[in-house]
Amino acid sequence: MVDIERANATAVGRMMEARPILKGLAVARDVIPSMKDNLLLHAGPPIEWARMSGPLRGAVIGALLFEGLAKTEAAATAMAEKGLVEFAPCHEHNAVGPMAGVTSASMKVYVVENITHGNKAFSNLNEGYGKVLRYGAYSDEVLKKLRWMNDVMGPVLADALAASRDGLDLRALLAEALHMGDEGHNRNKAGSLLFLKWLAPLVAKVARDRQVEHDVLQFLGDNALSILNPVMAACKAMADAAHNIEGSTLVSTMARNGTDFGIRVSGLGDRWFTAPCETPQGLWFPGFTAADANPDIGDSTITETAGIGGFAMAAAPAIVTFVGSTPKDATNATLEMYEITAAEHKYFTIPTLDFRGTPTGVDIRKVVEKGIPPRINTGIAHKQAGVGQVGAGLVRPPMKIFEDALVAYAERYKF
Amino acid sequence: MVDIERANATAVGRMMEARPILKGLAVARDVIPSMKDNLLLHAGPPIEWARMSGPLRGAVIGALLFEGLAKTEAAATAMAEKGLVEFAPCHEHNAVGPMAGVTSASMKVYVVENITHGNKAFSNLNEGYGKVLRYGAYSDEVLKKLRWMNDVMGPVLADALAASRDGLDLRALLAEALHMGDEGHNRNKAGSLLFLKWLAPLVAKVARDRQVEHDVLQFLGDNALSILNPVMAACKAMADAAHNIEGSTLVSTMARNGTDFGIRVSGLGDRWFTAPCETPQGLWFPGFTAADANPDIGDSTITETAGIGGFAMAAAPAIVTFVGSTPKDATNATLEMYEITAAEHKYFTIPTLDFRGTPTGVDIRKVVEKGIPPRINTGIAHKQAGVGQVGAGLVRPPMKIFEDALVAYAERYKF
Repeated sequence: MVDIERANATAVGRMMEARPILKGLAVARDVIPSMKDNLLLHAGPPIEWARMSGPLRGAVIGALLFEGLAKTEAAATAMAEKGLVEFAPCHEHNAVGPMAGVTSASMKVYVVENITHGNKAFSNLNEGYGKVLRYGAYSDEVLKKLRWMNDVMGPVLADALAASRDGLDLRALLAEALHMGDEGHNRNKAGSLLFLKWLAPLVAKVARDRQVEHDVLQFLGDNALSILNPVMAACKAMADAAHNIEGSTLVSTMARNGTDFGIRVSGLGDRWFTAPCETPQGLWFPGFTAADANPDIGDSTITETAGIGGFAMAAAPAIVTFVGSTPKDATNATLEMYEITAAEHKYFTIPTLDFRGTPTGVDIRKVVEKGIPPRINTGIAHKQAGVGQVGAGLVRPPMKIFEDALVAYAERYKF
Repeated sequence: MVDIERANATAVGRMMEARPILKGLAVARDVIPSMKDNLLLHAGPPIEWARMSGPLRGAVIGALLFEGLAKTEAAATAMAEKGLVEFAPCHEHNAVGPMAGVTSASMKVYVVENITHGNKAFSNLNEGYGKVLRYGAYSDEVLKKLRWMNDVMGPVLADALAASRDGLDLRALLAEALHMGDEGHNRNKAGSLLFLKWLAPLVAKVARDRQVEHDVLQFLGDNALSILNPVMAACKAMADAAHNIEGSTLVSTMARNGTDFGIRVSGLGDRWFTAPCETPQGLWFPGFTAADANPDIGDSTITETAGIGGFAMAAAPAIVTFVGSTPKDATNATLEMYEITAAEHKYFTIPTLDFRGTPTGVDIRKVVEKGIPPRINTGIAHKQAGVGQVGAGLVRPPMKIFEDALVAYAERYKF
């Protein structure tokens, strides 16, 4: 008979003791396992072209144009329809990407290493706001920015990271950012500034061109999400350390592809449990309404999986001006998550809750028993390809995936 | 008969509508009114050498060595004893300085302009932590760092600030920092990072030497108080805009010289009301105890005067790990200050209090009637010259100065 409590303590202990260090920036094909030129990684559980939502299709088109695999939108679409492009979840290649999460072979990715357990995780560069690939935009302007990021900023960042002896301790950065009003998913203002603070002197050391240096520091400084992608890779490295613990009922992956929400459970191997995504509720950018919103999308729920994001909203009362809520609701969101988690985080604490650790390690048993699905902070994409972000808000996964996982657990462990 | 409420509304309205912009960095003798070579400005109300506390004497000695006016500690002490040095409060020269606040003619100072009302304020460069002049240390190491700041970092900062078209809006920076866990006096982590973010691309533009550029970005990034001095000048510019309003009972200056606590009142002109300082209670750096603490010192109470610092502690729950307190006490500190202030700040808001404006504009009538003196967050200096910081904590001004001011007000306005 499996000792579930013990298995969960092991899993959540590994998740918290994982120490992800940002070590470098490299070309995806050189570092991501089994990456290849006609493979596009995407957010969420597996999905074929026919079932992809608008923003994911838009990002696929953009990535094919970026790679030069297609010359036009029509050619890109035809390639995808004809099955000339392979698709796989980022999560199945040790990677994560926000929103559409589309990562192609030439893109530069952050390399994060969990120095406690030795596993690695990868994430692409953050593009900032407005019309961006991750929200399904793929205009010339979008591709031009991507190329600047990859070919101009990329080498500077890579050199700067290489010039650091120890890399950047992302667990320590997150712990500090949670004391500075971030929750680590939708609000990464403080974390991005801490990243810039660490990076700027290294950039000053390695940059060869003053204008490029200026532009890189300006771009990173203006983007209050610059640390999101390294943070997601850090959370992936922490969650992966908690995966495949025999008998554990803790969730080790939560991710959405814009059509389906998928979870994986530590004690149930690499099997996905999926159901259609909900559509987030929140605040809309000028000119958009709820009718424009795509269903929930992105690997960024890896933050909630690791005990931050929506789970740490009490640390980030100012976020309510962005997602639509009140500071009291933000506190209650965190308090509710203690109901469905296995532990209070050892390193991530919330000052206003008397430095209580964040609720960490979602237990599928508790979710189903109490009828409380996890809470998620998220950006909201336009449902059509090519548009971009329309707002930000709050969402929950469908309850069905937790129920299905619990049934599978009972079958697997003969309860 | 003077309309006190109306006068106070005018004063606090001017304080809040003041918009201080960081415009430049210049040599004190070139920009501070009536500055001269044998004049040392200091924190707090006026004081002669004989009554100065250890840390203020230490900073005076250090400044005389820095200026080359004395070659040795003994020579510096002799100059001061013989009356060869003039002393005046920073506050009487449109300036402010943290802790000892000693500012000499060759030192570079930030130039802050309130573009709403046209007045200017000045503050010296922040030295960071450890053995520093502002805490009364004056060893070779202290002077070496001061010279590097003034002669190497200074020109880079001056050029960077000059390269900015609009300068840095310090009111906007503070408003943002209060949403990121700062209170603006003892905790300026977020504000200092926002400053660095704004400054780094400008530094990249103007710096001529890579190593210097690296060192400047490293120094500013490592110093979570780098924005304190510009913030103090901003608060001074705001408070000065509220000064000399006929009939106003609002406090326009609170400052301590390590011996006396002094206030000035808007409707009572430039007269100081003083009484002996209290000694702060707080947390001690390793190796020090309450017995080492000097009485309260510094112009940094200009932050509380302008509605932040101890008055905004509810915005900065994480500060309690530094000053010794609980998050609940931090919230209560802010709530108590609403009892003695004239307004809730229009631009400085506190997320956890449902974005309520910070308590702003201390009314001497309310302080005396309710028996509640203002609350102040502060660093704590060793009582002997030459040592430095020993801790950080909380303190209040002596009640007597508010009582004396109220009596003077009654005499002046014939109540």
